[in-house]
Amino acid sequence: MLKSKMSEFDLIAQYFTRPPRHATLGVGDDCALLTPTPGMLQAISTDMLIEGRHFLPDADPAQLGHKCLAVNLSDLAAMGATPVAFTLALSLPQARAAWLQPFAEGLLALADAHQCELIGGDTTKGPLNICITVFGEVPPGLALRRDAAQVGDDIWVSGTLGEARLALAGLRNEIVLDPSTLVAAARHLHAPTPRVRLGLALRGVAHAAIDISDGLSGDLGHILQRSRVGATLDVDALPPGPMLSHQPLDLRRRFTLAGGDDYELCFTAPSEHRKAVLAAAHSADTAVTRIGSIDAAPGLRLMDSAGAALTLQLSSFDHFSSP
Amino acid sequence: MLKSKMSEFDLIAQYFTRPPRHATLGVGDDCALLTPTPGMLQAISTDMLIEGRHFLPDADPAQLGHKCLAVNLSDLAAMGATPVAFTLALSLPQARAAWLQPFAEGLLALADAHQCELIGGDTTKGPLNICITVFGEVPPGLALRRDAAQVGDDIWVSGTLGEARLALAGLRNEIVLDPSTLVAAARHLHAPTPRVRLGLALRGVAHAAIDISDGLSGDLGHILQRSRVGATLDVDALPPGPMLSHQPLDLRRRFTLAGGDDYELCFTAPSEHRKAVLAAAHSADTAVTRIGSIDAAPGLRLMDSAGAALTLQLSSFDHFSSP
Repeated sequence: MLKSKMSEFDLIAQYFTRPPRHATLGVGDDCALLTPTPGMLQAISTDMLIEGRHFLPDADPAQLGHKCLAVNLSDLAAMGATPVAFTLALSLPQARAAWLQPFAEGLLALADAHQCELIGGDTTKGPLNICITVFGEVPPGLALRRDAAQVGDDIWVSGTLGEARLALAGLRNEIVLDPSTLVAAARHLHAPTPRVRLGLALRGVAHAAIDISDGLSGDLGHILQRSRVGATLDVDALPPGPMLSHQPLDLRRRFTLAGGDDYELCFTAPSEHRKAVLAAAHSADTAVTRIGSIDAAPGLRLMDSAGAALTLQLSSFDHFSSP
Repeated sequence: MLKSKMSEFDLIAQYFTRPPRHATLGVGDDCALLTPTPGMLQAISTDMLIEGRHFLPDADPAQLGHKCLAVNLSDLAAMGATPVAFTLALSLPQARAAWLQPFAEGLLALADAHQCELIGGDTTKGPLNICITVFGEVPPGLALRRDAAQVGDDIWVSGTLGEARLALAGLRNEIVLDPSTLVAAARHLHAPTPRVRLGLALRGVAHAAIDISDGLSGDLGHILQRSRVGATLDVDALPPGPMLSHQPLDLRRRFTLAGGDDYELCFTAPSEHRKAVLAAAHSADTAVTRIGSIDAAPGLRLMDSAGAALTLQLSSFDHFSSP
């Protein structure tokens, strides 16, 4: 890997270097060495997060460390893959211990919770940019792919939706929130919980899955496109976050349907698997809600709780870019 | 992975998306899926390249695409690993076809030459930043690690050194080069050749290896540190690049020893393997030069061709930062 000669950047590695565990060889050589588990497929995902686009310039470094890995673990969860390891590439304007230490702590605490080992990386001086590549394992045939939804499948979602978007609306002064509401909602924005356990429990139970990063309607759209199917959603069945549930109906609908930054799983499963889905959710200690069904006709149809067709003006999540 | 909703950024994927080959599932799901070869270790490296730091702002996009992957393949070469696949995370100020198309072509031409498949990625709007994570395979016990040098080993280097640093000196007006010299030297700077075939041929022949990105003396220093040994180098045995060979002795010594951006391999091998090293080099169609030996005494000692000790003022490669 590229090696920085700036002494302060050499020091960065100290915050992230620990003895190898899964890995045969970890941080500090040209490459890390991993021993794949025989018979398993390897799932790989990469995400690049940029200040001002994916997180606010004053983001708390510990929460940011958590979130950067969480969005990657969420991709493994959506594939039904067990986390194994990750690499971190970090561009920083300057190497400050007051930022690096809590960032590393937030990152490694979540990594430890999932036994996901930091095996290598790269640091350089430049605009703040955090790029993580994560590795997981899944048995052949059990990966939860986007192209596996079938006509007649139920559509499910984990947890609650829209709370992160509510927090963002408050922080941006798009709407006025009282301080305690804002603080409560902001936890969903800054410290999402990747649904790794649920993803594992859904192996062999769900057909298709995706994690909701850009908003349910857009992300479900990827499943529909790749599976060449359509869907009907009961918009009023979408589970709003606890603070969002007190907001007006229109806001609730828009933020649950297209809020973004939820990092919940949206998945499809045959209707004869309803009990198995609920058992999987129970075993993963994660709530799930049935929100619609997969149809043969292309497109996404929205209904209210009375079964009447809805037309909503939706704009998907724009990653903190200016409105 | 994070998904961009900006239509021009959605289009970026088109430049990079091709049908999967090695991969069970490529670009377009939450994760890519790879099937590891049974019994092999996986080698993983990540490098982040930033405009103004690792490449010049007016870099030719096709050469830049080549170079970004080349520096990663060079890490696999230094481990003796066979390239398999890579991910690309790209932050761009704007999505321009005039830049993206040649960048993708340069990148994918080198990828195809090494049968190294692009299996996933992420694109976002932001300051230009290119982060590649590369995957290779190596049989257990045959990886060329930095910590494996032994006292008495010969020290070898592939190809020539210092030519990229000569080009940089010319581009920065540190020295005056005639235009044809500058153009010839710049090929080494902009389009390095990763020594993948040599790395593979050195399995079981070499002990330790590293790729030279920051300059021979600094990178050899990593081998010495990790292997807890020292070394003596014959500075006048270092092979200068073709244009550098016409430069004054002091410049030749400084640029071969500490130029940087060479992407040659520095490796150690027992002296009884000299014939085997030369046979490996021949099979890989890559020149190698014996430049010194590993000693028990810590530190790096420099000698001239007459065996007299040298003291050189060296400053290592500073990644295009201001002098």
